[in-house]
Amino acid sequence: MHEQRIRRKVEYVDTDMSGIVHFSRFLVFMENAEHAFLAAIGPGVQWRDADGRELGWPRVAVSCDYLAPARFGDELEIRVRVLRKGTRSLTYGVDIFRQGATLARGKMTCACCVLNDPSGIKAIPIPDEIAAQIEETHLREGG
Amino acid sequence: MHEQRIRRKVEYVDTDMSGIVHFSRFLVFMENAEHAFLAAIGPGVQWRDADGRELGWPRVAVSCDYLAPARFGDELEIRVRVLRKGTRSLTYGVDIFRQGATLARGKMTCACCVLNDPSGIKAIPIPDEIAAQIEETHLREGG
Amino acid sequence: MHEQRIRRKVEYVDTDMSGIVHFSRFLVFMENAEHAFLAAIGPGVQWRDADGRELGWPRVAVSCDYLAPARFGDELEIRVRVLRKGTRSLTYGVDIFRQGATLARGKMTCACCVLNDPSGIKAIPIPDEIAAQIEETHLREGG
Amino acid sequence: MHEQRIRRKVEYVDTDMSGIVHFSRFLVFMENAEHAFLAAIGPGVQWRDADGRELGWPRVAVSCDYLAPARFGDELEIRVRVLRKGTRSLTYGVDIFRQGATLARGKMTCACCVLNDPSGIKAIPIPDEIAAQIEETHLREGG
Repeated sequence: MHEQRIRRKVEYVDTDMSGIVHFSRFLVFMENAEHAFLAAIGPGVQWRDADGRELGWPRVAVSCDYLAPARFGDELEIRVRVLRKGTRSLTYGVDIFRQGATLARGKMTCACCVLNDPSGIKAIPIPDEIAAQIEETHLREGG
Repeated sequence: MHEQRIRRKVEYVDTDMSGIVHFSRFLVFMENAEHAFLAAIGPGVQWRDADGRELGWPRVAVSCDYLAPARFGDELEIRVRVLRKGTRSLTYGVDIFRQGATLARGKMTCACCVLNDPSGIKAIPIPDEIAAQIEETHLREGG
Repeated sequence: MHEQRIRRKVEYVDTDMSGIVHFSRFLVFMENAEHAFLAAIGPGVQWRDADGRELGWPRVAVSCDYLAPARFGDELEIRVRVLRKGTRSLTYGVDIFRQGATLARGKMTCACCVLNDPSGIKAIPIPDEIAAQIEETHLREGG
Repeated sequence: MHEQRIRRKVEYVDTDMSGIVHFSRFLVFMENAEHAFLAAIGPGVQWRDADGRELGWPRVAVSCDYLAPARFGDELEIRVRVLRKGTRSLTYGVDIFRQGATLARGKMTCACCVLNDPSGIKAIPIPDEIAAQIEETHLREGG
């Protein structure tokens, strides 16, 4: 698996009084694409392993450059790739397009974590069977 | 306890492209007032009882009449009372004001539930020590 | 036009710490279905008429009964009909389903309004060419 | 003006099914602090100048490092400073604290723009009377 693409239509509630999509919503679109990626390679977004541990991918860092606004009704395409596969984390690159034009470019680093450890949320190595299905992709299209 | 009041400033993200607060946000304001009410009378919004049961108040029904729009920066006051104390549920009346003018009037019915029952979410009688602290209020101000 | 149906997958951000979809999000799903209905019958959600008036459909009242919770990843179907076509407003009935099971039943009344009138937001009669395309539907399925 | 601080209590709707505040909400908290900063130094978040131009501060880039989760009911303090005052943009540094512990550190670059230019959203030099009130702050506390 080296890329996942989803489509998302901009909803009225995504907009704010400036008439365009609120900037925080782009992070939601990025997350939706990440979740589609995770669903495609394995147990999904949050799951319980054979040892009863609840596992998931809390965010460690996100960033986003905004190139052009999105508006109500726009049909967006969101593409996500893994830029870096670490021992305990994944860094995704996410691009948001409308009809071929890039509206935003983001990055998101998520750590593989036990969510129900008595000591709190705890990062662990990415399980082998999941890591095996993830390929790093270093180039953006045209890049 | 017969009424709780909270204040909430309208945030930019509460607005939509029509320039006013999105109608779904009024329900969030109502919920915030309910939570302040519950915090004032007892164990709060979601808690674990002596038997290890996770208890809470899922919504059964909501309604809201919109009288006037709210805008970015508005200082709202939200007032919540219990209109009806049932065996297993509470019906709240919630009014949303801006400087004395009523912007919205809502109702919200919440059932007292065990959230972690093996059979799913299950309504139970409101625990006595909580019910004892709730008074019904039948009249609105001026009403 | 007497019914519109849309599909909406529950996103992670739609959920709250109780593990299910936040109740205010059901109103967003209802709105999305209303917008698909309006898009199908005419100029859409918000438009400028020949006289330069900005027209739209602010909400006057909403209500929702919650029958069963929705969870992350659920594929919802939302069906919207016009229960009452008034001179200046429409009352929609909206049902939210997951694989045939009804999760929620709501109503929403929206007034046809000029949004950019110097005196503020002002209700007007529904333009004939729009009203002509709307049929009231009094029965729910099976009802 | 070199720093603005606001307080924000975590609301139930800020959380998601993992039991903690959704990562996109931290950007909303950052924006709220920025808006308090702008309100303190001048005409606010969005305003009309003497030439009838609608002015505002669309986001160009944001980033956030997540150090620890926030939970329902937490009292957060958000502190915002200007790290860089450009000719046409401001880069803010924003820290989110809970009782002295840093939960998140972010940056946000916003461009001073005309929002209602016939050609679309257009960046302009920051008006002198606003720029004059902004001081860059290069050090974080303790840094």
